[in-house]
Amino acid sequence: MHYNYEDDSLALHTDLYQINMAKTYWEDGVHNRNAVFELFFRRLPFGNGYAVFAGLERVVQYLENFRFSDSDLKFLKELGYEEEFLNYLKGLSFTGSVRSMEEGELVFGGEPMIRVEAPLAEAQLVETALLNIVNFQTLIATKACRIKQAVGDQIVMEFGSRRAHEMDAALWGTRAAFIGGLEATSNVRAAKLFGIPAAGTHAHALVQAYRDEYTAFLKYAQSHRDCVFLVDTYDTLKSGVPNAIRVAQELGDKINFIGIRLDSGDMAYLSKKARKMLDDAGFTKTRIIASNDLDEDTIMNLKSQGARIDTWGIGTKLITAYDQPALGAVYKLVSIEDGEGVMQDTIKISGNPEKVTTPGLKRVYRIINTNNHKSEGDYIALEDEHPNEEERIKMFHPVHTYISKFVTDFEARDLHQDIFSNGKLIYELPDIREIQAKVKNNLEELWDEYRRKLNPEDYPVDLSEKCWDNKMRNIHEIKEKVEKIRRG
Amino acid sequence: MHYNYEDDSLALHTDLYQINMAKTYWEDGVHNRNAVFELFFRRLPFGNGYAVFAGLERVVQYLENFRFSDSDLKFLKELGYEEEFLNYLKGLSFTGSVRSMEEGELVFGGEPMIRVEAPLAEAQLVETALLNIVNFQTLIATKACRIKQAVGDQIVMEFGSRRAHEMDAALWGTRAAFIGGLEATSNVRAAKLFGIPAAGTHAHALVQAYRDEYTAFLKYAQSHRDCVFLVDTYDTLKSGVPNAIRVAQELGDKINFIGIRLDSGDMAYLSKKARKMLDDAGFTKTRIIASNDLDEDTIMNLKSQGARIDTWGIGTKLITAYDQPALGAVYKLVSIEDGEGVMQDTIKISGNPEKVTTPGLKRVYRIINTNNHKSEGDYIALEDEHPNEEERIKMFHPVHTYISKFVTDFEARDLHQDIFSNGKLIYELPDIREIQAKVKNNLEELWDEYRRKLNPEDYPVDLSEKCWDNKMRNIHEIKEKVEKIRRG
Repeated sequence: MHYNYEDDSLALHTDLYQINMAKTYWEDGVHNRNAVFELFFRRLPFGNGYAVFAGLERVVQYLENFRFSDSDLKFLKELGYEEEFLNYLKGLSFTGSVRSMEEGELVFGGEPMIRVEAPLAEAQLVETALLNIVNFQTLIATKACRIKQAVGDQIVMEFGSRRAHEMDAALWGTRAAFIGGLEATSNVRAAKLFGIPAAGTHAHALVQAYRDEYTAFLKYAQSHRDCVFLVDTYDTLKSGVPNAIRVAQELGDKINFIGIRLDSGDMAYLSKKARKMLDDAGFTKTRIIASNDLDEDTIMNLKSQGARIDTWGIGTKLITAYDQPALGAVYKLVSIEDGEGVMQDTIKISGNPEKVTTPGLKRVYRIINTNNHKSEGDYIALEDEHPNEEERIKMFHPVHTYISKFVTDFEARDLHQDIFSNGKLIYELPDIREIQAKVKNNLEELWDEYRRKLNPEDYPVDLSEKCWDNKMRNIHEIKEKVEKIRRG
Repeated sequence: MHYNYEDDSLALHTDLYQINMAKTYWEDGVHNRNAVFELFFRRLPFGNGYAVFAGLERVVQYLENFRFSDSDLKFLKELGYEEEFLNYLKGLSFTGSVRSMEEGELVFGGEPMIRVEAPLAEAQLVETALLNIVNFQTLIATKACRIKQAVGDQIVMEFGSRRAHEMDAALWGTRAAFIGGLEATSNVRAAKLFGIPAAGTHAHALVQAYRDEYTAFLKYAQSHRDCVFLVDTYDTLKSGVPNAIRVAQELGDKINFIGIRLDSGDMAYLSKKARKMLDDAGFTKTRIIASNDLDEDTIMNLKSQGARIDTWGIGTKLITAYDQPALGAVYKLVSIEDGEGVMQDTIKISGNPEKVTTPGLKRVYRIINTNNHKSEGDYIALEDEHPNEEERIKMFHPVHTYISKFVTDFEARDLHQDIFSNGKLIYELPDIREIQAKVKNNLEELWDEYRRKLNPEDYPVDLSEKCWDNKMRNIHEIKEKVEKIRRG
């Protein structure tokens, strides 16, 4: 194309302010101070009771390849950055350590999904890309999981590429949808890269191209053993279903008449009528596939109306997370090395209590009751606490602190794994099928109250007392400082 | 990474059914029949009165590079496709002709944005990617244009990368936002590739890293001449604004105290208070920049409350098209060569009149009144019609046909350009600034009734009488055929 620069690196896939901050740190000589950032969201999407973490594989790819290309540096020079600073950037790669939830982990508001510990400037420069990746993929995995819960044991497929937000969203969104529980995708590139089963037969265009529905079905059947006929190009019940049956009867054993697909009209009515027509013709095993702006709500409603749908194709509503197209994860500095080499807590204050960050190096534990193997809630403790060595722990609500309980007979499962250690990848990325299975297993640990689609109970995400006290201390320090400024 | 196949082509960025249809066409020997597809949406997004077409540049890149890689073919073989069919795919490139609106053209429901005329199988294989690109980019350009109309002559910047749907959406969404009227972006990669101005100074992390707001502002000011201080890390009015003023006073001429940025809290209240504090300190030219989940509605409301905001940073709501995250453009076959080499119309029927396609090769004209240079509406005519050679044209509503008017003293502007001719790119892609200017000029042609944000009038998109009659003829042909099947 006619671009001035090659698109040969993702290092500039960042906000300009990250580069400007890196420059300040570098000029001030603090760019290599050890810094700890946490990536988390505050509120669950879709009114759901949990979210499904996804995005780590892409994050790993990004961090492993993090380097400024010559064209990046040339462009930054054009923007006015000085040679020495550019020389510093030229030598950069990601040398930090990362702890993260594994993909498929269930995550709740306020819990660090990823913790980056790195030289300050490096940790800062990677923020935007990490959020860009995790916000989207976690959103879609969560939406897919909601849809899969509504579908139950039937098959559900991802059909959304044409409505996705450009190509990466189609590709990585498909992967996230598979993690959340979908069984197949229409996107062949995603199938190729990630090993997801590919699905799809024909569109209206085939029928239009032959200008005759019977001929189109026949031609398709003569070139494919497995046949699903799309029956609504002209008229579902008067033309589509009869033509599908006719072709199936004529070709007999030469094809597998797997199904018909309904893509418009009243799905409840049409599926019942079509089912009867298929059954009457002896095709009792032929499936009815539906795809028409479906989501977990329409699926649940169709099921409650007794729709005879066996397989579900989900497009727009899933791949765009239509009812809430953004997850608001942020990336906040919680600890920073001072001039003496000592780690110091940092905090961001806000008038809104939910937006005050929780300072310090922390770990997140899922507290599993050893009697029933269900989760009592999650427990955020400081790095040097060891809940598994304690008889009982006190869990209390981080905003309404008077809500509390003591838990005994528990196992505290650390929700993070070590991913990078000083820039070196030390984590083996699991197969996508393992990740999908992990979601299923994790859901088993949640009581039904947290899993229901509408108005789930709030799952407890509690701070340890030490963590809470530390947060309060930090808030008071800042408040005193602000008060001093006000007094002049 | 641990993938079995390399991600070295976009040819499989398509739905599996396209490949299955191509196989049917190829086995039946009709794969090279000339086919014409049109890409269009039915309904305008956001309740807006128009949309802004975007995506052509990326479509051109995609079509120019359309080829199956060895790894694509290897994967398709794994899926079970036979050697001969794969050999056919191996030799494929895009050899068709494309007519398209230019980016920045205003487009309305039912109007072909892109027309692809190509060998049937080729035209089919590229459908998914074209929709994936155009649906997203047109959606964002339209949303950006709405936002720019609300902002007026002030500066508005794109800040949404962290909430975009993965990386392509951040990159190409930024470009679409610029086309729609935004002035700058925080995304440095987009700035580098597309020549969009980059903007941004620092985040909360800078203040947290220094654990003291005054120190952070001072360090930033010592390393950057142009300063915008983010003032809400601890307390906007008690700490942020006073510290910004203090640093600006201390450094005097050494910096340009361009602005402060508000990122939380009550923007109307805070901006008025901050304005007074800045003015009282003599910084009357220092701007106030706002960025906090803004969109065209919040902007309009803040303005009506007298908020003293000079510059706007827009993130989530723009880059995700939050209030309607999908445009429903489709790609429909309108004409196909028959066995005798004659082009035949094709149609898709639906119970919903809006969903019935308009068959045949067509052109779209904007009918400009030569007296006032305003548009009378758009006029879709068959390829062989020449409205500019006619004294007057009859324009009538394509669904409610009794609504009609005669237009004289007009110029009919063909809204399409030739982009590819038999696989060869014959269009010079314009500079992005030209595209942005084009949107502005195009908007001048629309009466205010079509441009307003809330409840705009329906802009007329009319069919010529010939085009209408042709559509009716096609509908009746199909209906008769369906009736025959029903009668058995």
